[in-house]
Amino acid sequence: MNLRIPGPTAVPPEVLAAGAAEMINHRGPEFAAMIARTTEGVKKVFQTKNELATLSASGTGAMEAAVVNMMAPGEPALVITIGEFGDRFVNLVNAYGGRLTQQDYEPGQAADLNRIEDALKDNPDIKLVFITHNETSTGVTNPILPELGKLVHKYDGLLVVDTISSLSSVPVLTDEWDLDVVLSGSQKGWMTAPGLAFVSVNERAWAKAAKNPQPRFYFDLKRHTDSAATGQTPWTPAVSVWFQLDKSLEMMLAEGLESIFARHERAGKMVRDGVRALGLELLADEGVESNTVTAIKVPEGVDGNQWLKVARDDFDTVFAGGQGNLRGKIVRFGHLGYMTDDDLKAGLEALKASLERVRK
Amino acid sequence: MNLRIPGPTAVPPEVLAAGAAEMINHRGPEFAAMIARTTEGVKKVFQTKNELATLSASGTGAMEAAVVNMMAPGEPALVITIGEFGDRFVNLVNAYGGRLTQQDYEPGQAADLNRIEDALKDNPDIKLVFITHNETSTGVTNPILPELGKLVHKYDGLLVVDTISSLSSVPVLTDEWDLDVVLSGSQKGWMTAPGLAFVSVNERAWAKAAKNPQPRFYFDLKRHTDSAATGQTPWTPAVSVWFQLDKSLEMMLAEGLESIFARHERAGKMVRDGVRALGLELLADEGVESNTVTAIKVPEGVDGNQWLKVARDDFDTVFAGGQGNLRGKIVRFGHLGYMTDDDLKAGLEALKASLERVRK
Repeated sequence: MNLRIPGPTAVPPEVLAAGAAEMINHRGPEFAAMIARTTEGVKKVFQTKNELATLSASGTGAMEAAVVNMMAPGEPALVITIGEFGDRFVNLVNAYGGRLTQQDYEPGQAADLNRIEDALKDNPDIKLVFITHNETSTGVTNPILPELGKLVHKYDGLLVVDTISSLSSVPVLTDEWDLDVVLSGSQKGWMTAPGLAFVSVNERAWAKAAKNPQPRFYFDLKRHTDSAATGQTPWTPAVSVWFQLDKSLEMMLAEGLESIFARHERAGKMVRDGVRALGLELLADEGVESNTVTAIKVPEGVDGNQWLKVARDDFDTVFAGGQGNLRGKIVRFGHLGYMTDDDLKAGLEALKASLERVRK
Repeated sequence: MNLRIPGPTAVPPEVLAAGAAEMINHRGPEFAAMIARTTEGVKKVFQTKNELATLSASGTGAMEAAVVNMMAPGEPALVITIGEFGDRFVNLVNAYGGRLTQQDYEPGQAADLNRIEDALKDNPDIKLVFITHNETSTGVTNPILPELGKLVHKYDGLLVVDTISSLSSVPVLTDEWDLDVVLSGSQKGWMTAPGLAFVSVNERAWAKAAKNPQPRFYFDLKRHTDSAATGQTPWTPAVSVWFQLDKSLEMMLAEGLESIFARHERAGKMVRDGVRALGLELLADEGVESNTVTAIKVPEGVDGNQWLKVARDDFDTVFAGGQGNLRGKIVRFGHLGYMTDDDLKAGLEALKASLERVRK
């Protein structure tokens, strides 16, 4: 099966084998050595010297961790949303009693730095901003990250960035861009099964968390980094997924970040070119297309769900559909993590053949 | 390595192999079939017809789920604690703003039904009770569960039971004992890696949760059971651990609950007899010893940490030490999940040989 969804992504055989190792004591020396190694490795990919917490949870757990550690009940917060995963921050801020200012964009659009500055100017009480880097639901990468940290800090704010489906596939310069809290999840470019999530926290963010009365326990980031410093986790970790991560990091660091980023850039271009060659349109505006996932508009007269079903049943290729309001309107083609050019070519052929079949 | 800790426990080779299967779409038909199967299987082991949520988190995540779904901020709550894991409920109730009444017992003691009734009589505003069934930190199984549900309901209360290290190894009759919220975790008798946790919720508990204003999102149980009814999870699940669970449930149901319980009863007796034959004392009071973990008092003049180290380094056997105030004072011998009589005999021999060596 050609799994062409934007996560969970295919896991390399070496990583699957590593995850099938015998269980160990999570309070023993093997685990201590492993958490030291993976924390160091994940930080290299995050391009950060900040502290890093590894949570036994999915990416949404990391998003919740960012919210409950950084936002006090009743605190004003700006959420920039360009799709479903931005909306998840909206839901989290609402769930935890934030005073929400929401800035929406049309599906396919990227966020605009000037509009964000306007919002910060208009709402001088906002000191906390949430944004998605790569919006998995629309295939858009927000290009403003290099400037956004500086902008938010100019207004004395703190910036939380969901890079779940970008970091490890495309460049995220956590320290150079001065991103305060950065999130990712194991099931994307990390070539690992779902079940672990990462949160980097800089000094500015720790200072804010230290004064934050929002209740938290499982996702209390300080407990995680304090435990990690002693070679442990505060709660029993997802050991088998951690074994996988340990192996995949070894492979990623051997490949090198520049080579990984170049590979994803090439993959994005190959898929976009292939999709356009079929006469299909992308949802993403030109220039902000994601290099990890491509959202393709379902052409007039085609049943999007049927297209997905035929691709799957007749051509052994699994694409993702649209979420929320985009259900039935787009097909999403994942191109991140463990993949070869042949996987992508086969994906494009399956896309074409299945479309022809549903058009008949 | 003979992993003789009370979890994570050894995972059978068939289950490890199942966990190394290729990744699938967590929104596709294979996952839908799997979650239906595992929910049904876990409910059989829970001996319940109640709804069941499977969380991608460790056991502490299930404990937090119970607290945030069932307890309102400022609500009075009684926590019965006979050790570290009871204390974790204390910490959770405090973290989420409960008005705590704490009933403590000495390490090794079981909880007393009369003392609990006294607490409920003395505090008629308490309508929420937390208890640990099997206290992993002291090797004690509270024997009062069959009567406790009825008692708590007599005072119009709701009962939450942490059966993380008991259910799946020893009988927990969720429905017959009328236990409102019951928790377990994959890395114990379930013979699966850590990373999944289970919460069963009865009608009484759903009614309470529906009126509970406590903020929650990742651990919102209703989201999990609603999603499960459509063959999905609300957030990306720990798929590879789920593959393992699917396989281990198949093995457990083939073995049969009665046979599993008998095996653990025999294991508990074998280990206790073996430990006593070495002239060692148990921490647990007589009659309430756990059939999943035995806590052994470190004899006068022996360095408990050294004992653990020698067992590990020289005899390839990993026991657990004491937690909190019991650090260095006890050695814990796990006997749950995937194990043979030979594993236990080898564990007892390693216990003896390492003790002799540290005594020299």
